Amino acid sequence: MSKIKIQEARVCAVCVATDPRHFVTATVPQVSLEFGGIPGDRHFGLTKRASGRESNYPHGATIFNRRQITAVSLEECRLIAKILSIPLLSPNWLGANLVLEGIFDLTDLPMGCRLLFPSGAGLLCEGRNTPCIHAARAVQAHYPDRPTLAKEFIAAAAGHRGIFCIVERPGILFTEDKVKIVWERSFR
Amino acid sequence: MSKIKIQEARVCAVCVATDPRHFVTATVPQVSLEFGGIPGDRHFGLTKRASGRESNYPHGATIFNRRQITAVSLEECRLIAKILSIPLLSPNWLGANLVLEGIFDLTDLPMGCRLLFPSGAGLLCEGRNTPCIHAARAVQAHYPDRPTLAKEFIAAAAGHRGIFCIVERPGILFTEDKVKIVWERSFR
Repeated sequence: MSKIKIQEARVCAVCVATDPRHFVTATVPQVSLEFGGIPGDRHFGLTKRASGRESNYPHGATIFNRRQITAVSLEECRLIAKILSIPLLSPNWLGANLVLEGIFDLTDLPMGCRLLFPSGAGLLCEGRNTPCIHAARAVQAHYPDRPTLAKEFIAAAAGHRGIFCIVERPGILFTEDKVKIVWERSFR
Repeated sequence: MSKIKIQEARVCAVCVATDPRHFVTATVPQVSLEFGGIPGDRHFGLTKRASGRESNYPHGATIFNRRQITAVSLEECRLIAKILSIPLLSPNWLGANLVLEGIFDLTDLPMGCRLLFPSGAGLLCEGRNTPCIHAARAVQAHYPDRPTLAKEFIAAAAGHRGIFCIVERPGILFTEDKVKIVWERSFR
């Protein structure tokens, strides 16, 4: 037995990191999702090398890539900026591929919930992101007068850093898309 | 911040459904996991066709296959048999690829937990199974004197039907393997 919950949000931006050396994404009008993520994006691929985030496996082992797409909430980005007393925290600095508006608690979405788009594309939430050093450094770089900001970011962003997803069904994502967020909560 | 939980179990059996027309699995000495599951198994593949289980998508749409591997617990099979007052409920009838002993509450494992094997292989739990008509009919077929058993099975097996997994890291699974079950519980 399960209970289905539905929530709606709006796609503010879709973004890609086309240079694999750089973490920060650039906003584009649309992205085409394939199995594995966004072709050309830094995180694209059905497999990846295990890193510190997958410490159950030997470093560098080839494992399935659950981190194909990073989604953040505009409201959570604003909250982090407020905590840090900075005027702006761009989702691009956080390596976001998808920026949603209208869902304050995106980071609290459970694994297994689905983000469904008008094109028919579907993302599957695989977990919550944690604040990483790449994002912290990108934020720091924009506020050189705040030398401890990277460290402050790691603390302030915990629990607000959005989610990572896999592509469950390919399709196109456009800015201004309405996204339907659906999950079943099993009774236990 | 997260808390890591570790549990151990034993692999009683590894099983394959080599005939795609039949749901019931056959026990084999070992299976080789690849990305997508067990080559030759009925559920092998990185993609599948959406069915009633994935009702968010059009029936027949090509979607990512989260149902690569089915795992059940020997203790839960025994519990279902007890509820149904039948002497035996074979995990093979349930289409199990992996039968574990020593974990009574396998079905309650959360999404995202990992099953780690001595070969280095890793499975990622993608959710709990629900009792399906294929399994119910397979159970029924072994007890022809119990004409309502299929229906009874659906009710009795709810919450004890095990989990479905994807292959996170390829490798070989052997009978008698010790499996380490690991998950992080995020503080929220």
